[in-house]
Amino acid sequence: VKTTAVSGALIGKDGYRHYMLKEIYEQPQVIGDTVNSYINPETSRITMPDLPFDLARASRLTIVACGTAFYAGLVAKYWFETLARLPVEIDIASEFRYREAPMPENGVALFISQSGETLDTLEALRYCKRQGQRILSVVNAPESTIARESDAVLYTMAGPEIGVASTKAFTTQLTTLACLAAQVAHARGAIDDERLMSVARSLREVPARAAEVLAHDERLKDLAAEVSEARDVLYLGRGAMYPLAMEGALKLKEISYIHAEGYAAGELKHGPIALIDDAVPVIVLVPSDNLFEKVVSNVQEVCARSGKVLLIADRKGIDRLSDRVRWSVELPACDPIVAPILYAIPVQLLAYHTAVLKGTDVDQPRNLAKSVTVE
Amino acid sequence: VKTTAVSGALIGKDGYRHYMLKEIYEQPQVIGDTVNSYINPETSRITMPDLPFDLARASRLTIVACGTAFYAGLVAKYWFETLARLPVEIDIASEFRYREAPMPENGVALFISQSGETLDTLEALRYCKRQGQRILSVVNAPESTIARESDAVLYTMAGPEIGVASTKAFTTQLTTLACLAAQVAHARGAIDDERLMSVARSLREVPARAAEVLAHDERLKDLAAEVSEARDVLYLGRGAMYPLAMEGALKLKEISYIHAEGYAAGELKHGPIALIDDAVPVIVLVPSDNLFEKVVSNVQEVCARSGKVLLIADRKGIDRLSDRVRWSVELPACDPIVAPILYAIPVQLLAYHTAVLKGTDVDQPRNLAKSVTVE
Repeated sequence: VKTTAVSGALIGKDGYRHYMLKEIYEQPQVIGDTVNSYINPETSRITMPDLPFDLARASRLTIVACGTAFYAGLVAKYWFETLARLPVEIDIASEFRYREAPMPENGVALFISQSGETLDTLEALRYCKRQGQRILSVVNAPESTIARESDAVLYTMAGPEIGVASTKAFTTQLTTLACLAAQVAHARGAIDDERLMSVARSLREVPARAAEVLAHDERLKDLAAEVSEARDVLYLGRGAMYPLAMEGALKLKEISYIHAEGYAAGELKHGPIALIDDAVPVIVLVPSDNLFEKVVSNVQEVCARSGKVLLIADRKGIDRLSDRVRWSVELPACDPIVAPILYAIPVQLLAYHTAVLKGTDVDQPRNLAKSVTVE
Repeated sequence: VKTTAVSGALIGKDGYRHYMLKEIYEQPQVIGDTVNSYINPETSRITMPDLPFDLARASRLTIVACGTAFYAGLVAKYWFETLARLPVEIDIASEFRYREAPMPENGVALFISQSGETLDTLEALRYCKRQGQRILSVVNAPESTIARESDAVLYTMAGPEIGVASTKAFTTQLTTLACLAAQVAHARGAIDDERLMSVARSLREVPARAAEVLAHDERLKDLAAEVSEARDVLYLGRGAMYPLAMEGALKLKEISYIHAEGYAAGELKHGPIALIDDAVPVIVLVPSDNLFEKVVSNVQEVCARSGKVLLIADRKGIDRLSDRVRWSVELPACDPIVAPILYAIPVQLLAYHTAVLKGTDVDQPRNLAKSVTVE
């Protein structure tokens, strides 16, 4: 019986050494499944399910989640505000549920949870319901409590996620939220037909681009050897890359037990730059977008203080900074809207390989549970 | 001439070894000066200067700042929302200024800056002005650009702050914001005369309570010997103590170069708890308030994983947890509204003594400038 269980688990890993690695590699597939469920593959039209309320006419959107799902929500805040001009308030569920937030008239509240059972998120949902908010959730597990108690649910098509450190759930949450933000932006008249189509096309290309990113696995494994020597790591980004920096740091913390912290690059000078010396790798996530030059100055500050920068950027970004930085990983050039989905993958792989080198239990890191159903 | 300058600097330190320590010790005085400038000492009535707009009738308040001033803003968000039921949006200035946030009709935007010259904060102010927001600022330096460009200014009475790590500027920012939040709460009918008077009385008692907290200096110096051995430190809090946890971590980072991170205690289980082992001191800030029992469970989780907890709490909290935690520092029992001001002091002293033990340049930490007037 035991042997069967073990072989079952091995089959479940599809030949990968860990569930986490398998799930990282599944991303082109499951992001594709998610894209296909929200974008018509023939017409490239975004067709979200009909909601029992009009999100486009909401006065405000309140997003509440925990951990990795919270970072997906932070990215979505940038999308809803810049693309759809819909104001978003966001908070960690454990904070939100106790602070008796005054809620807007005609507001919609959005909850993000892989398991659909995260207790703090569920209690935040119930608070918002009592405050007369319409409830929307982005959930991976269909039969879950959060799904059941929502007015409408958007499912991520990640499939079962076994590794405790969330990977494919995160990128499919982002994919779902990008589709939603684009549709709402169009319905609010904030973007025209052409921009809507171009966002949809960019999203449809993500699975192919994600597969290209996975091709850097060996390179990231080499870099993990450097990161695994560090006691502390900083991750920097601006705009929608700021939540990605926090997510990258969280991944490394969770499975390698290295103290990593994500920072808004512009806050560097207000304190964390004091930590920088040649022992602290600084991982910078910077696609070519309107914030690129701002991040370049932050990279220069880090380098001037002997910081070792690992640059994750596209060809243009690497060309601009190659004489400054210690290491780089080249990601495909892309529409800035989809960059957060693609830039998630190298930070997952870096954390994974670092943890393997450190010899930790990657799929079951110490002290952590997959689904946090207690406070 | 050189000798004179040096003696001048020595006199400026008033016999203290560093400006930072002098400024920590000035807090009972300068908090008192700030309280006296906003609360009539005879009647205990809060009397803020007349503003050229009605903050109590604003639809929303947007708070923008950097670094330590941002954490003061985060505390103020709790005060404005719970006490005054005025919804608050808050962001880091370097993020806010580039994300083209949709701004509310009839909104007020509040900027917090010690120097009044912080470039990102100033540019965020200008953005809000263009978006038709009324501009209020909380500033320490009267002749500053931010003060000049605001519709109204509330001055903190901290006096010149020389140490790069902000201490008395932070607590006087908090004091000013607490007075403002209480007055707005009353004007909005969210609190009655009696509660307004009790908040004012609690604020008037802060200088005396702050002096009591300073009496723990020797104890905190002893504990700094433990902290100075650590490579990583976590700070935890809930509610208004969550920004204090981040501020405590920032202080330690800035001057001791130990990688410290502040976390909302409820987020612990979503990742950072993986870092916990007996080498990582966990500093928990927990006054006796409505969130106390929630933090108790988080402390128990940390202790169950061999975490070494330094508890900063009042007598009641210490009695409840003394058999669990490694160390404790007893703060006076107080109205939860003023707790953030008092709890700032032990984390300042802990960072200060740790830095002295590490032999860093406390008043001029590496890589940092007092006023960040570039991006």
